[in-house]
Amino acid sequence: MRRYWIEKKDLFQSQVNFTGDVFHHIFDVCRQEVGSKFEVLTEDSKAYFVEVTSVTKKNATAQILEERVIPTLKEPRIHLLLSISRFPVMDAVMEKAVELGVFRIHPFFSEFSFLRKGEKLSDNKLERWDKIVRSATQQSGRGDLMKIESPIHFDDIAGLINRNQGHAGLFAYEGSDQIPTLGIKDYVTKIKSAYPEGIRDLWIIVGSEGGFSQKEVQRFTDLGLDPVTLGPQVLRVETACMALVSVLKYDFDLMS
Amino acid sequence: MRRYWIEKKDLFQSQVNFTGDVFHHIFDVCRQEVGSKFEVLTEDSKAYFVEVTSVTKKNATAQILEERVIPTLKEPRIHLLLSISRFPVMDAVMEKAVELGVFRIHPFFSEFSFLRKGEKLSDNKLERWDKIVRSATQQSGRGDLMKIESPIHFDDIAGLINRNQGHAGLFAYEGSDQIPTLGIKDYVTKIKSAYPEGIRDLWIIVGSEGGFSQKEVQRFTDLGLDPVTLGPQVLRVETACMALVSVLKYDFDLMS
Repeated sequence: MRRYWIEKKDLFQSQVNFTGDVFHHIFDVCRQEVGSKFEVLTEDSKAYFVEVTSVTKKNATAQILEERVIPTLKEPRIHLLLSISRFPVMDAVMEKAVELGVFRIHPFFSEFSFLRKGEKLSDNKLERWDKIVRSATQQSGRGDLMKIESPIHFDDIAGLINRNQGHAGLFAYEGSDQIPTLGIKDYVTKIKSAYPEGIRDLWIIVGSEGGFSQKEVQRFTDLGLDPVTLGPQVLRVETACMALVSVLKYDFDLMS
Repeated sequence: MRRYWIEKKDLFQSQVNFTGDVFHHIFDVCRQEVGSKFEVLTEDSKAYFVEVTSVTKKNATAQILEERVIPTLKEPRIHLLLSISRFPVMDAVMEKAVELGVFRIHPFFSEFSFLRKGEKLSDNKLERWDKIVRSATQQSGRGDLMKIESPIHFDDIAGLINRNQGHAGLFAYEGSDQIPTLGIKDYVTKIKSAYPEGIRDLWIIVGSEGGFSQKEVQRFTDLGLDPVTLGPQVLRVETACMALVSVLKYDFDLMS
């Protein structure tokens, strides 16, 4: 079923009024019409199942048939730790991560990240990401806003990933002579058997275009994180992020 | 292991010479150095495992240690039938499809495609896609060039999808009151049991931004294609393509 975000103020008793951009998107782009049924979402995580009762050139009205609370993301919640990459790549990842249901993004500075330790992300950039997240949330009909955490330094990753019960983590890696990788499917099998009581948080770490240094790779394995490969082809940063999130959501039955 | 495409002419007896853009990519961007080992690929689907023996500011040399033939893509081979979408979206899908190992892309005109039946794709556009495929092939270290077929009309899809033994197909659909969808995981379970002898070709059909008309959806189901969903969120065209390809490759053990 289609879902659209609206503002709370467009709700009035048991009716919804559509005007402006929202009207354009739902009725011009998506071609909904009188009699169409779909859901509208509001920022307080409520969803209203509605039926369109009238449409003019500029606005439309729908009747609320049912109301429900949007459930939060199911577990395991996916945390994407992403070494800061070129900005168009960061933008693409933010957007796709919302659609695919990533819980949180934690950008970090590493040896080969696009910005180095000590450099600062402009407020502009953080605002831009926030805007991308809001727009993707509305477009995809997701019920909550994905949080983008403040960028951290590589050395702070250890403290962030709590390796207590119910946490598991991997880093995307193409392998080397010293450090063999685990196929993603073998990795999932491994953590499912290691955490029979279920996994609450899944940490996935993806490098920037320059990858990770040998020292950083060593640090990850010291932390008990598994080096995981997605196959023989070298994937771009955004492709690796999307493929990883997709297959994890799939295997943990979160894609239905 | 890293892989790089080189031209056949850069091979000389048991040595490889790196200059120009290839040198820049391997030694400046990827920071390979004397003693580094990786694979270089040539257009005749051969791979050479090499060790770098010398690096200067402008060129480098490596010794060939081993030679092998790159295996072709394993089955099921994924055919992506994509309704022609906005061009930046088409470009993104072409690039990611190469990385993720799509066998062939078949663009098609449908009721809500970005270009309509009768309009023509410029030669420029086809050349651009060809360039994107070549560049992504080299970047990802894939062993073969993904083919982009000439765009076809919706009505020709039936003839294209041969529903004989070893072929299966789905179309991405968010569902409606009349046509319920199958979760992607249930779909895979279904076709695996329907084709115990294995699936040779898997056809996945994704609509443009406007989706499919009711008539088109009916036509797909008449053809025996399953309407498949990737979850409650509405995915953009390129996200749906990537997520579908990723989870299919994953479930059929093609990601290792």
